[in-house]
Amino acid sequence: MRDYIEIGIGREARRTYSLTNVRVQPARRTRSSKDVDTSWHIDAYSFKIPVVSHPTDALGSPEFVIEMDRLGGLGVINAEGLLARHADFDQAIAEFAAANLGEDGEYVLPSASIAKLQELHAAPIDLDLLTERIQQVRASGATVAVRVSPQRARELAPIVIKAGAELLFIQGAVVSAEHVAAEGEPLNLKEFISTLEIPVVVGGVHDYTTALHLMRTGAVGVIVGSGVNTAESLAIQPSMATAIADVAAARRDYLDETGGRYVHILADGEIYNTGNMIAAIACGADAVILGSPLAAAAEAPGQGFYWPSTLGHPRFPRGIVDVVHDSFLGPRPRLEQILHGPSQDPFGAQNFVGGLRRAVAKCGYEDLKSFQRVDLSIEL
Amino acid sequence: MRDYIEIGIGREARRTYSLTNVRVQPARRTRSSKDVDTSWHIDAYSFKIPVVSHPTDALGSPEFVIEMDRLGGLGVINAEGLLARHADFDQAIAEFAAANLGEDGEYVLPSASIAKLQELHAAPIDLDLLTERIQQVRASGATVAVRVSPQRARELAPIVIKAGAELLFIQGAVVSAEHVAAEGEPLNLKEFISTLEIPVVVGGVHDYTTALHLMRTGAVGVIVGSGVNTAESLAIQPSMATAIADVAAARRDYLDETGGRYVHILADGEIYNTGNMIAAIACGADAVILGSPLAAAAEAPGQGFYWPSTLGHPRFPRGIVDVVHDSFLGPRPRLEQILHGPSQDPFGAQNFVGGLRRAVAKCGYEDLKSFQRVDLSIEL
Amino acid sequence: MRDYIEIGIGREARRTYSLTNVRVQPARRTRSSKDVDTSWHIDAYSFKIPVVSHPTDALGSPEFVIEMDRLGGLGVINAEGLLARHADFDQAIAEFAAANLGEDGEYVLPSASIAKLQELHAAPIDLDLLTERIQQVRASGATVAVRVSPQRARELAPIVIKAGAELLFIQGAVVSAEHVAAEGEPLNLKEFISTLEIPVVVGGVHDYTTALHLMRTGAVGVIVGSGVNTAESLAIQPSMATAIADVAAARRDYLDETGGRYVHILADGEIYNTGNMIAAIACGADAVILGSPLAAAAEAPGQGFYWPSTLGHPRFPRGIVDVVHDSFLGPRPRLEQILHGPSQDPFGAQNFVGGLRRAVAKCGYEDLKSFQRVDLSIEL
Amino acid sequence: MRDYIEIGIGREARRTYSLTNVRVQPARRTRSSKDVDTSWHIDAYSFKIPVVSHPTDALGSPEFVIEMDRLGGLGVINAEGLLARHADFDQAIAEFAAANLGEDGEYVLPSASIAKLQELHAAPIDLDLLTERIQQVRASGATVAVRVSPQRARELAPIVIKAGAELLFIQGAVVSAEHVAAEGEPLNLKEFISTLEIPVVVGGVHDYTTALHLMRTGAVGVIVGSGVNTAESLAIQPSMATAIADVAAARRDYLDETGGRYVHILADGEIYNTGNMIAAIACGADAVILGSPLAAAAEAPGQGFYWPSTLGHPRFPRGIVDVVHDSFLGPRPRLEQILHGPSQDPFGAQNFVGGLRRAVAKCGYEDLKSFQRVDLSIEL
Repeated sequence: MRDYIEIGIGREARRTYSLTNVRVQPARRTRSSKDVDTSWHIDAYSFKIPVVSHPTDALGSPEFVIEMDRLGGLGVINAEGLLARHADFDQAIAEFAAANLGEDGEYVLPSASIAKLQELHAAPIDLDLLTERIQQVRASGATVAVRVSPQRARELAPIVIKAGAELLFIQGAVVSAEHVAAEGEPLNLKEFISTLEIPVVVGGVHDYTTALHLMRTGAVGVIVGSGVNTAESLAIQPSMATAIADVAAARRDYLDETGGRYVHILADGEIYNTGNMIAAIACGADAVILGSPLAAAAEAPGQGFYWPSTLGHPRFPRGIVDVVHDSFLGPRPRLEQILHGPSQDPFGAQNFVGGLRRAVAKCGYEDLKSFQRVDLSIEL
Repeated sequence: MRDYIEIGIGREARRTYSLTNVRVQPARRTRSSKDVDTSWHIDAYSFKIPVVSHPTDALGSPEFVIEMDRLGGLGVINAEGLLARHADFDQAIAEFAAANLGEDGEYVLPSASIAKLQELHAAPIDLDLLTERIQQVRASGATVAVRVSPQRARELAPIVIKAGAELLFIQGAVVSAEHVAAEGEPLNLKEFISTLEIPVVVGGVHDYTTALHLMRTGAVGVIVGSGVNTAESLAIQPSMATAIADVAAARRDYLDETGGRYVHILADGEIYNTGNMIAAIACGADAVILGSPLAAAAEAPGQGFYWPSTLGHPRFPRGIVDVVHDSFLGPRPRLEQILHGPSQDPFGAQNFVGGLRRAVAKCGYEDLKSFQRVDLSIEL
Repeated sequence: MRDYIEIGIGREARRTYSLTNVRVQPARRTRSSKDVDTSWHIDAYSFKIPVVSHPTDALGSPEFVIEMDRLGGLGVINAEGLLARHADFDQAIAEFAAANLGEDGEYVLPSASIAKLQELHAAPIDLDLLTERIQQVRASGATVAVRVSPQRARELAPIVIKAGAELLFIQGAVVSAEHVAAEGEPLNLKEFISTLEIPVVVGGVHDYTTALHLMRTGAVGVIVGSGVNTAESLAIQPSMATAIADVAAARRDYLDETGGRYVHILADGEIYNTGNMIAAIACGADAVILGSPLAAAAEAPGQGFYWPSTLGHPRFPRGIVDVVHDSFLGPRPRLEQILHGPSQDPFGAQNFVGGLRRAVAKCGYEDLKSFQRVDLSIEL
Repeated sequence: MRDYIEIGIGREARRTYSLTNVRVQPARRTRSSKDVDTSWHIDAYSFKIPVVSHPTDALGSPEFVIEMDRLGGLGVINAEGLLARHADFDQAIAEFAAANLGEDGEYVLPSASIAKLQELHAAPIDLDLLTERIQQVRASGATVAVRVSPQRARELAPIVIKAGAELLFIQGAVVSAEHVAAEGEPLNLKEFISTLEIPVVVGGVHDYTTALHLMRTGAVGVIVGSGVNTAESLAIQPSMATAIADVAAARRDYLDETGGRYVHILADGEIYNTGNMIAAIACGADAVILGSPLAAAAEAPGQGFYWPSTLGHPRFPRGIVDVVHDSFLGPRPRLEQILHGPSQDPFGAQNFVGGLRRAVAKCGYEDLKSFQRVDLSIEL
């Protein structure tokens, strides 16, 4: 039974839970970490680790994406980011980074840098430039994943597919299969996806019903969560543990309905350390989309800053600029260290995969799919 | 069923909930923000946006009220504030603002500025001055709303109505329809309201029963909450999510009782960002009364400070002086930006209406009244 | 039904609640503050306000006690404090105060000042000095209340009574009517109290059963709570809302058992502002024992510091030294202002009685006893 | 009944509780602290106090262990720590301590010191040196307890036993009786323990089932908790109050199954002050393993720092470096003061045993075993 509380007379709210306090419960048997299989397979693509990078410019250079691939994960290029708008991408990022600092080199309040980000996003998308970026990744042999927004999917999808995209992410903060518009014709996802030659991952989604509808569009994966890295102010951010479990329930029902079509769940939100990632997978995610943790890497184009793709929105920016690495900390760690260790961070911000592997092993499981059955506990 | 806990043997307390963690749940369908109607109609008056300013001097100059009207909302003049006591209103505010700063320009402890505010309120109300202020708004064509306290309503209401008030707010922190006094004759709201030629909004109210009684007085709107911006110390501050939902239940019962008389609910408390406003409306409010968020505007007379009207109370000041904008942040944003964006604030303190519009749209609704049925979730 | 949770298999814990989030619920009717009666009567003694000072030296000079009486409350002298051990009481306090400050005038860590307090308490009790202090209060016409510990009650009670005490407080952190000792004969409270000519208040007590037993000893009042001002580290501090309600239940049962003997409940713990006091009385207390809030008064001997009487314990000091007023805040407020206002503090630390009066009035009650029936709400 | 919540559709999590808010409930009777027996007996060994030191180098010098014994408790040597790897142990610790400080003497970020700790642990275990350390303790007459990891137990146990160990701790963060390995033969604890001539304590364990299985291996004690001093990031840290109570339930069932074999429970986690220790024992622990509280002692080799043994792990360090005593605080207290008082700390960080004794006495019990039946309360 759902857990509902009556917030006032005749008005109920469902209690929801975030990943923070979810813990997994060892039980009876333990294993060695080295015997744990962390691989993830979606459509024809296989990955050694269930880690995808959030499609923000802070993580979106071709070089970063190629390195993600080399390390076993999946990097995603944002087709509507600065990368596709500015030939000198590094320069654009540098301008944004500078806007975060005052004359004295101290961090300033967000309004200045957000204004700069909005200004930089006002440049038009250069389709040739975008094509070139995608081809660069394709040429490396890495799996090519590209993100477009639902609003521009019809326009951009053919271009990015032609350029070499192998996986298409249609990703906004809140996406449904039934977008209603007073004028113009909204994107019919089911129809649209059926016309594409490559597999599609779609989201963010936050509830059972919308997830079930999105699964019926033919997508191979759905994204749970909005990827926005601040939850306080917007009232439509889901609590991720609940949202992931709800969408996993939708998957079970869709499996039954289709006689076996398995849609992957990617979690994009509330994942800041290894423990959050472990909890997300234990709640039902097949893979996690990491944002700020990866932005601390030396290879990340964000220069020590992280921001979600939604922060450049012209009228309603969402998220915050997160300082993920300060120069006084010394050099930034390599992406490899963040993903595979060795860790020199006691808070779970390094060796994400090693931590996951250890949790799976200590709870007695051999792979991620079976680990989704682990007993959970929560301290509130 | 109400949610009661036994705090000790035989002594129960009802669990209540604040707006902070209330979230709205997208479900199945999404819409475009531009297809959302945010208008609000009370009695013969229509507003493009469901936003009312708290009747404090920090927001109460005629110019500010006129600008609120121009932007689609409703500004309220406090008939018992400094505006009605000091011909040089700007000077009075400047004195108060100065009392918040020490010799070194740093903020000082509240006792000095509260003493100053009490001193400034000790000046008598100048009825001619008050009339002039009201006429100034009326002359602009803006809707004229004026607030009086229950204690002085009989004395001041005729004057403010004569001066041009079109909506009367009878507002105290806690108001009931059955005020009992050992001596003197208390205000009989029902009788009193029936004698007035203009519609009356009355509050604050915090519970179902008092709300139902207030609705029976003939008021067109009731205010939920006390508008005081600090809750810790007074033990009679309601938790707003619960209070709004309870009063909405009283409205439903009153609708039934009267065969269709609809009393509006205005929420005045715990609303500091867009998310809080969204939650308040989702819980049942028709409009919100904003205080500190509007005080950050360049047009606000408070000079970067916010304080509720209750803070000038001679014996028992309630609320705090809130520094809503510090000069090192650069120029204050325009009221238009706070209400309608574009936002450069990731925490929901700008583009209130855009944020509301987006939430309504993402949840698949077209207007505010239907949005009051949205599914809620809460993380505790 | 009690609210029990299973913390682990087969091991339950009762959920308890503190005063912080307890709020009172206005309902239907309001009154004027001036029509509220805040008087409190215990045995033959009447007080205009239900406020007692904690028996610590920080509040325990004869002058302070006399001022408490003048303002309508009850001050309590600690027969085992520095006042009874040092002829130059002011000097002793000054030594302790100095031990709280380092050479640079900054506050230092607690170990130094606790050691000093322990050292000052090592001086023996001077019975003549104690007698003199008590007589000084008696001579003023103020009600004389004196606190002794259970351990030394047999020895000191006759002396303080002879000196003029009119109310005896037998107060320790945790007191029971059945103290068991391997050697020596423990105090039999029932027998002991029956031998005294003056009314006795006894505590602290934290649960229903012990409270019922203490009521049967013939005490006119029981103290709920230990008066210790830090709860984190000791595991036997009760949550005050629950403890007060439980002891109020014991009182109801004792009333029934005795056919009408009413034992007063004094709450000593978790009361830092007006809201906490309101909650304590609403939960069932007849009066509150205030500590740190009163220590901010100009008349308090503690020189801006507060510490509970338990902090001088030679082996196991409990509580913290609380800096209740710093000199940079300007002069300390008068005790009258703290108790009766006008307040210049928005956090409820001044005008305790005015705040109580207002809450009782806004909830529609006329006196404190009926206010104990007010509806409660709690936000967790 | 267990307390389960549904975090999402069809996915439940058990609610668990930490020690922090667990309180014990005085009831009816009180006693004198001096009449309380705090002794603890495990196998043939008796201890005056139920306190064991965590097997970290921060607490692991022979001198410290000998002092623990003198004061009534049990110190444990880590056979795999720096003590067994560096002939000049003090120098190794000094290097680590220095790595925690920057050039300006300020504390630096953890990565540098963790890297140093990993580097120091890379030195091989010197079996002769280890033997010598153990013999040094044995020669003093103190009880000799030595910790080995499950991975190296087969190799090291014979050596430490030969050197004079009287109690063997086989301790890792998460240990089970059924470790499964793809290659190599994992340690069969039951078989292994049966071959040893000395009693074995084994853990950490976090749940009922694993605990029951570990009890069946023939161990005389099981350790609850991982001893890691940061819980946020790893998702497999249990909540200690729940874990202790669950393992105590396993003990009850094992007692029944074996017709009376009593396995001791040692709690290693979340114990930072006297209150936590009281709560741990009240939940069912027979003894507590203390880490950071003891590291503040002048005798502790950690030079004012504390770190759990898991922090030196080469790939996945867990825990944090805790600054337990800063030089500006003056000299560090003696271990005797921390354990037996007198306390000069109001937060429960000194006089652990006195505090325990007082709690047991105030709740009316005479010894620790009966105190495990005390009524609990919890504030959430």
